[in-house]
Amino acid sequence: MPKPVNFQEKFALFTEQWAPKVIAEMNDYQFKIARLQGEFIWHSHADTDEAFMVLEGQLRIELRDGAVMLQPGELYVVPKGVEHRPCAPQEVKLLLIEPCGVLNTGDQGGERTAVNDVWV
Amino acid sequence: MPKPVNFQEKFALFTEQWAPKVIAEMNDYQFKIARLQGEFIWHSHADTDEAFMVLEGQLRIELRDGAVMLQPGELYVVPKGVEHRPCAPQEVKLLLIEPCGVLNTGDQGGERTAVNDVWV
Repeated sequence: MPKPVNFQEKFALFTEQWAPKVIAEMNDYQFKIARLQGEFIWHSHADTDEAFMVLEGQLRIELRDGAVMLQPGELYVVPKGVEHRPCAPQEVKLLLIEPCGVLNTGDQGGERTAVNDVWV
Repeated sequence: MPKPVNFQEKFALFTEQWAPKVIAEMNDYQFKIARLQGEFIWHSHADTDEAFMVLEGQLRIELRDGAVMLQPGELYVVPKGVEHRPCAPQEVKLLLIEPCGVLNTGDQGGERTAVNDVWV
């Protein structure tokens, strides 16, 4: 019997922050869950939009001209090429949807780049 | 100030069932919300996977070799070419993610085909 992916079951399998884990694929896109807390780095993705959906907690996506606040049950798509910085004073659990191969640090690289394509 | 998409605010804008409404785009993909109740028709999408996420209620996706039960907080990706039939004894609110241009009835067409690319 095929089984759906349950977000909470998947989150129970790791506690690492800033390390997106793949939970499903759709064509050449991936669904990734992540725990974030604190401030990330400013970056952008030159070739793709990136969708953020909050599952638990609150996420602030800073943009150069403002910020978007996301609560559970909310979705925001950062357009390609737009600089953004995810921030969360408390841990937030979120779902990312983006093409396979997209790195969390986009054009910036550096020490906060997570290993890509890790499934949970 | 940019705003996120709030699923409940969007659902409050329509009561029609079996009529997916676009709420956001990501590259050439769309996020659509829909209210389903009852049984749909068997169909498949020859060229694309299709992602279902339940937001409220329960969804049964019948497959030729079984069925998948989805609760809120669960995701299932129907692979391309796989025949499926969504069913919901009570109304279910769900999120669909799929490429632009995908029809709800896939290869089957017919009277249950919803008008495509309707935003809410």
